[in-house]
Amino acid sequence: MSEFDVGYFQEPFKSLCASYPGTEAYDPAHFRVEWGPIFHRGRLDGSAKMLVIGQDPAQHETVVRRILVGEAGRRIQGFLGKLGVTRSYVMINTFLYSAYGNPTAKNRKNPKLVEYRNSWLDALILGKTIEGVVALGDRADEAWKMWRATPNGTAFTKTYVKITHPTQPESSSGGNHAKLEQATKKMLLNWNAGLQTLAPSMTHPDEAIPMVLYGEAFLETEKLQIPDIDFPAGLPAWMRENDGWARRVGTNEAKKRANITITVPKKNLPS
Amino acid sequence: MSEFDVGYFQEPFKSLCASYPGTEAYDPAHFRVEWGPIFHRGRLDGSAKMLVIGQDPAQHETVVRRILVGEAGRRIQGFLGKLGVTRSYVMINTFLYSAYGNPTAKNRKNPKLVEYRNSWLDALILGKTIEGVVALGDRADEAWKMWRATPNGTAFTKTYVKITHPTQPESSSGGNHAKLEQATKKMLLNWNAGLQTLAPSMTHPDEAIPMVLYGEAFLETEKLQIPDIDFPAGLPAWMRENDGWARRVGTNEAKKRANITITVPKKNLPS
Repeated sequence: MSEFDVGYFQEPFKSLCASYPGTEAYDPAHFRVEWGPIFHRGRLDGSAKMLVIGQDPAQHETVVRRILVGEAGRRIQGFLGKLGVTRSYVMINTFLYSAYGNPTAKNRKNPKLVEYRNSWLDALILGKTIEGVVALGDRADEAWKMWRATPNGTAFTKTYVKITHPTQPESSSGGNHAKLEQATKKMLLNWNAGLQTLAPSMTHPDEAIPMVLYGEAFLETEKLQIPDIDFPAGLPAWMRENDGWARRVGTNEAKKRANITITVPKKNLPS
Repeated sequence: MSEFDVGYFQEPFKSLCASYPGTEAYDPAHFRVEWGPIFHRGRLDGSAKMLVIGQDPAQHETVVRRILVGEAGRRIQGFLGKLGVTRSYVMINTFLYSAYGNPTAKNRKNPKLVEYRNSWLDALILGKTIEGVVALGDRADEAWKMWRATPNGTAFTKTYVKITHPTQPESSSGGNHAKLEQATKKMLLNWNAGLQTLAPSMTHPDEAIPMVLYGEAFLETEKLQIPDIDFPAGLPAWMRENDGWARRVGTNEAKKRANITITVPKKNLPS
């Protein structure tokens, strides 16, 4: 038996997934609109206690059609686990489409882009049982603030924290190992502060467990596999275990943009 | 607005998709079990009037996670269209996993494989409004006969036809153009006979239209795009328009088996 995500069969999510914005909201010069939108990961049935706002989907997410399923997803899964939230969460991204380079402020503030995202935030928060919200990085924080500036957002009274994006250490250290270690250490301090802010608010975790903060580096046990209930039916388990199986391959930027190459890990192939 | 397939949220399909057989039913020497099962395409809500039984999924199906979405799918979509069935159909395959070479009789008759497929046939037929069943090729015909030999299958009284598999002309002609033309002509004669057998039974088509039989070759208008309501939410339209965007790439058989390479068609990329 394996669980799976039953998807977007309930309103308002069914209508939201049928009426997503395209190039009128997302400039193809700055977003990989050609791969289609990727909407969410986690519970849409009202059981979510924690809302995570990520940034944008990459190649693994494009294959799985769920967000935060790669390394960033495993790290945030570990973060939620420290709060005892193993199942009752839901995640959306700032952007529906994979960012191509750095989206400009004009792009980020496109009213059609913002309005659609706010409809998701309304659907996930208003009248629901969310006890805490976590934004991953600056873009997600900006998205949250835009929603908070709406009439619906103004009324929000639960706990909100912005934490460093889970793969910021990699993106900021440019392959320098010492810089990566330093950035990771700094991020985990920031995450520890986030955990301590959130913990008192999470009054209905899936598991009541003692809080164990991060040290100066990730332990392997602090990166968790994405649960099967977050993935569409029938996807193989290796897609949830580790990332690295999807790459954008090509001899130039245009070819890379047009490509996703999936490779089954050796250990999952018949010998 | 774009419709999409809401997926496997209703019973018994939800349970069927959570309890599919793996290597105990499908020998990895003969099936690409590592890519996961691919279950169906079309209506699961009881509205289907036509049931199509295909053979096995290939690389496009593996990305889309729905069956018969490539060239064979476009051809059979055209076949259904000639009967006025534009929406009220459902399709399953003989095999859940992509066949690797030619499955042996021992494999094909594995009781766990057969039993699971029969559960789908029971779910799609018993107490439902199916008016006609079409099997695509020998494997599908064998699958159908195995179900017909069960107590549930014995009671079936609607119309059944076996037609030539939609890409049999390609697979039988080995790149020889004259042979391909001849095989296509022969297949379309076979399909015309199938249409004439089925037509009187299809008393509730989506559109009541006059029957127009095939000529000696496919017209472009006789291959239809897969409708958006058959695809999971958010998939780009180019995945439904034509196949050829997914390939198994590699310098040897093992590498090809481990790989699926997706390439966005040029016209769907920003210029």
